[in-house]
Amino acid sequence: MQAGKPILYSYFRSSCSWRVRIALALKGIAYETVPVNLIKDGGQQFSKDFQALNPMKQVPTLKIDGITIHQSLAIIEYLEETRPTPRLLPQDPKKRASVRMISDLITSGIQPLQNLSILKKVREETQLTWAQNAITSGFNALEQILQSTAGKYCVGDEVTMADLCLVPQVANAERFKVDFTPYPTISCINKRLLALEAFQVSHPCRQPDTPTELRA
Amino acid sequence: MQAGKPILYSYFRSSCSWRVRIALALKGIAYETVPVNLIKDGGQQFSKDFQALNPMKQVPTLKIDGITIHQSLAIIEYLEETRPTPRLLPQDPKKRASVRMISDLITSGIQPLQNLSILKKVREETQLTWAQNAITSGFNALEQILQSTAGKYCVGDEVTMADLCLVPQVANAERFKVDFTPYPTISCINKRLLALEAFQVSHPCRQPDTPTELRA
Repeated sequence: MQAGKPILYSYFRSSCSWRVRIALALKGIAYETVPVNLIKDGGQQFSKDFQALNPMKQVPTLKIDGITIHQSLAIIEYLEETRPTPRLLPQDPKKRASVRMISDLITSGIQPLQNLSILKKVREETQLTWAQNAITSGFNALEQILQSTAGKYCVGDEVTMADLCLVPQVANAERFKVDFTPYPTISCINKRLLALEAFQVSHPCRQPDTPTELRA
Repeated sequence: MQAGKPILYSYFRSSCSWRVRIALALKGIAYETVPVNLIKDGGQQFSKDFQALNPMKQVPTLKIDGITIHQSLAIIEYLEETRPTPRLLPQDPKKRASVRMISDLITSGIQPLQNLSILKKVREETQLTWAQNAITSGFNALEQILQSTAGKYCVGDEVTMADLCLVPQVANAERFKVDFTPYPTISCINKRLLALEAFQVSHPCRQPDTPTELRA
């Protein structure tokens, strides 16, 4: 069906795209990036070509092994099943449950409520408060849950899928000027993760489509 | 750690709880229901006791095997890993990716945008339109995706986790008076699934906490 490198449709600032970029980096999978600018031209995700590829009009989308996968966690689980090393889910089913619980808390309990397409639907002067409320409400719960699951990282001492969700969500929180005082555990884990190479090369400030003024 | 039956904290009308109830029914797992009324007393999920159990203040939560799991998909994946028969994920990794993609589309791309806690944040007269837009936007994509994945059910001819997400979401769509004319595939699969016993015993109209006037 398909030869050559996997293709990731990505936007440098999309937190959902970043999750997948970290997974690809950790697993050492070479890939090509096709940038989809969510703002330019009224949003390139709304183009006919992109809609034909992903009817949800969202990034990330990954073409790999002759198939096209949407939704960041579905992509990461597929990579985990087909390229198991290094693993992003622990072996113990109970720990796997913790990883998926934290991942889902972020990907369905926080991110969808503060993403661009939702913020565009609320009055401009309330957008910042709306996003902050969505994030702090989720982070209040997450901080408490991490007390019982975390070691060096979100679940124990190995990097897992939960960490791939945490770091991009923290970056969103920083953009929305969330006060991190109540979240010492989240902050500490985030700092540790950002020191790892896979989180650095996948960072929004180092993507092919990162505007020059935001590069680092 | 824990003896006896698993305990499901559930609300009869919660679509996320219904997903888990279907999984428990399909796998033949006996359990006790502890109802959490999301409306009564200003929302029982906000009680101190429940917050100590689930800091996200959401149902479902499942106590099983000595652990407590939140987030419906994390619960279903745990059940799948520890009670694999009958399976809710296909064996082929590519088909598993389709199942997870559809599940995530619904659980992070549709449901969070039309749930009670979000609707309470928008003006009352716009709530119905808001919910309808969230659902139709997701269903437009889903109808198209199902063209290439569906057999009798969402992915091929076996009931999968994707179907456990579909039926409760369709029920929400019906409550919000969504026009189903553009969704023949969704409608057809939903009808087939509702004929199955596991979808019937888990139905919101047949739960311990279903009010008498809504029972069937």
